[in-house]
Amino acid sequence: MAATEPKKIIIDTDPGIDDAMAIFVALQSPEVQVIGLTTIYGNVYTTLATRNALHLLEFAGRADIPVAEGSHVTITQGTKLRIADFVHGTDGLGNQNFPPPKGKPIELSAAAFLVEQANLYPGKVTVVALGPLTNIALAIQLDPAFAKNIGQIVLLGGSFAVNGNVNPAAEANIFGDPDAADIVFTSGADVLAVGINVTHQVVLTDADRDKLARSNGKYAQYLCKILDVYFSYHHDAYSTKGVYLHDPTALLAAVNPSLLTYTEGVVRVQTSGITRGLTILYNKQKRFGEVTEWCDKPTVKVAVTVDAPTVVNLVMERLMDS
Amino acid sequence: MAATEPKKIIIDTDPGIDDAMAIFVALQSPEVQVIGLTTIYGNVYTTLATRNALHLLEFAGRADIPVAEGSHVTITQGTKLRIADFVHGTDGLGNQNFPPPKGKPIELSAAAFLVEQANLYPGKVTVVALGPLTNIALAIQLDPAFAKNIGQIVLLGGSFAVNGNVNPAAEANIFGDPDAADIVFTSGADVLAVGINVTHQVVLTDADRDKLARSNGKYAQYLCKILDVYFSYHHDAYSTKGVYLHDPTALLAAVNPSLLTYTEGVVRVQTSGITRGLTILYNKQKRFGEVTEWCDKPTVKVAVTVDAPTVVNLVMERLMDS
Repeated sequence: MAATEPKKIIIDTDPGIDDAMAIFVALQSPEVQVIGLTTIYGNVYTTLATRNALHLLEFAGRADIPVAEGSHVTITQGTKLRIADFVHGTDGLGNQNFPPPKGKPIELSAAAFLVEQANLYPGKVTVVALGPLTNIALAIQLDPAFAKNIGQIVLLGGSFAVNGNVNPAAEANIFGDPDAADIVFTSGADVLAVGINVTHQVVLTDADRDKLARSNGKYAQYLCKILDVYFSYHHDAYSTKGVYLHDPTALLAAVNPSLLTYTEGVVRVQTSGITRGLTILYNKQKRFGEVTEWCDKPTVKVAVTVDAPTVVNLVMERLMDS
Repeated sequence: MAATEPKKIIIDTDPGIDDAMAIFVALQSPEVQVIGLTTIYGNVYTTLATRNALHLLEFAGRADIPVAEGSHVTITQGTKLRIADFVHGTDGLGNQNFPPPKGKPIELSAAAFLVEQANLYPGKVTVVALGPLTNIALAIQLDPAFAKNIGQIVLLGGSFAVNGNVNPAAEANIFGDPDAADIVFTSGADVLAVGINVTHQVVLTDADRDKLARSNGKYAQYLCKILDVYFSYHHDAYSTKGVYLHDPTALLAAVNPSLLTYTEGVVRVQTSGITRGLTILYNKQKRFGEVTEWCDKPTVKVAVTVDAPTVVNLVMERLMDS
């Protein structure tokens, strides 16, 4: 029997400290082949996300992987962006002032690149979406067949039945572009949502960071430099001695889905008002007599539990092994 | 030591089959003294709620208890009412065509009566709110001191971290008047919210109903007549062999708060969009750097667990003991 071909993935990303970690873990994972990065605002503005994506690939010696620049604005174009530089540093990478990258993004936009790759390898490409979902929604609008042709969309987003991290209602990536998120959730694509209800269980502790610092792995060494800002933010906001591994968890859900368990149902996003960006999963336990906004919409998978120790160990191992 | 004086309660109600049950349990509970009923739309329109409230008190031989008619419209006055006659029957009491009551409501409106009683017995009156919160919000607007003077507001409402019963986002009482609910939750009054996340644990089974039917208690006999419609609805909507004791659970939370456990936090209500009527409790586990709509608002208590077997037993005992 031939060895399984690695799964083709495109990482849609706003690097971002945990984005950097997820990208490095992906490059170190033989189960997947990273065929491109697409960039988006979120932790930083899109221009800086592109710069950081190119920089991270060059640091990894993988400048062969194309970077496609994504949208600079929300899908409705009218919304003020929320940029989480207070979490990741003003440069998005822990205020390290890395030199500018040598490379450039490809000519195609993120949405056009996503559509191109989905058509090139129908059913074979997984998008791992680590920021607001504007690029994915634009790809869906650009090509009516995208939702069918894309293999799976694994997204870090939502706060299912728990408080959000932007405010008590909303998680940052969905809050970043709620209209785009609602398009993605109701597109009919094979969507797997990993929310902060799950990623808040996956903590990289101070002790784990010390272990990374003692290793000779180049990724471990790089990350230890940029992690300070991220640890400080978590300490201030959550009183935790450790950081949440949001993006690496979503990435590993794409690498090995059996690390998490899932439920399935229709997800809609509130796009206005005080709970703007809220995700509501309909669990089908009640049959509503009345027509609801969840009726006749395709279902998605939503992560419920995670094998957190194994996820943390995998992240550590792959970052130290280089 | 003198015996504890019974707690004065006013039941704000839209009878309603489980409202009838809650009212009867209250009348049978020596721990509380029902000093009035106020009426509201919800399970039926307000006019019919008033008629049913008078009827229930006359059946109980308690025509001495005043009934004050409440609002016929939502607090913003522009919203189409949602009437749950498909749950309770077109008469609200299981389609039994009971004769009209002999009595009449008092001249005071529900809101004015609530304000009057709160001023008469400052800190001593508990409102048990079993329908949309329009009357309570109007009392708060009528008298700036109401929130301080009322002892406690125990309300059946909300679907905290679970799906609603009107749609996946919203519970019926909050959905009935979201603007009023947001006024009540942020009023600074001592509010205790019992949501369907809790009341869905309290089920009166077919076997319990058979036991009621075999008893000679007049309340048990009355209820067995009207319960058919309610059981049918639950079977169709939830595939359960039994019915949820929403209103009796909220009533017993006022009678004996130790039957439930509570958390405390700020609750806000979404008043528009697809999740209109949604309740979001901020659990304070994160300190948000940004100003949120939950900042600087008073906290309320929200029920988390319930001693369901004891609640069901208490309801049964008190309904059979007459």
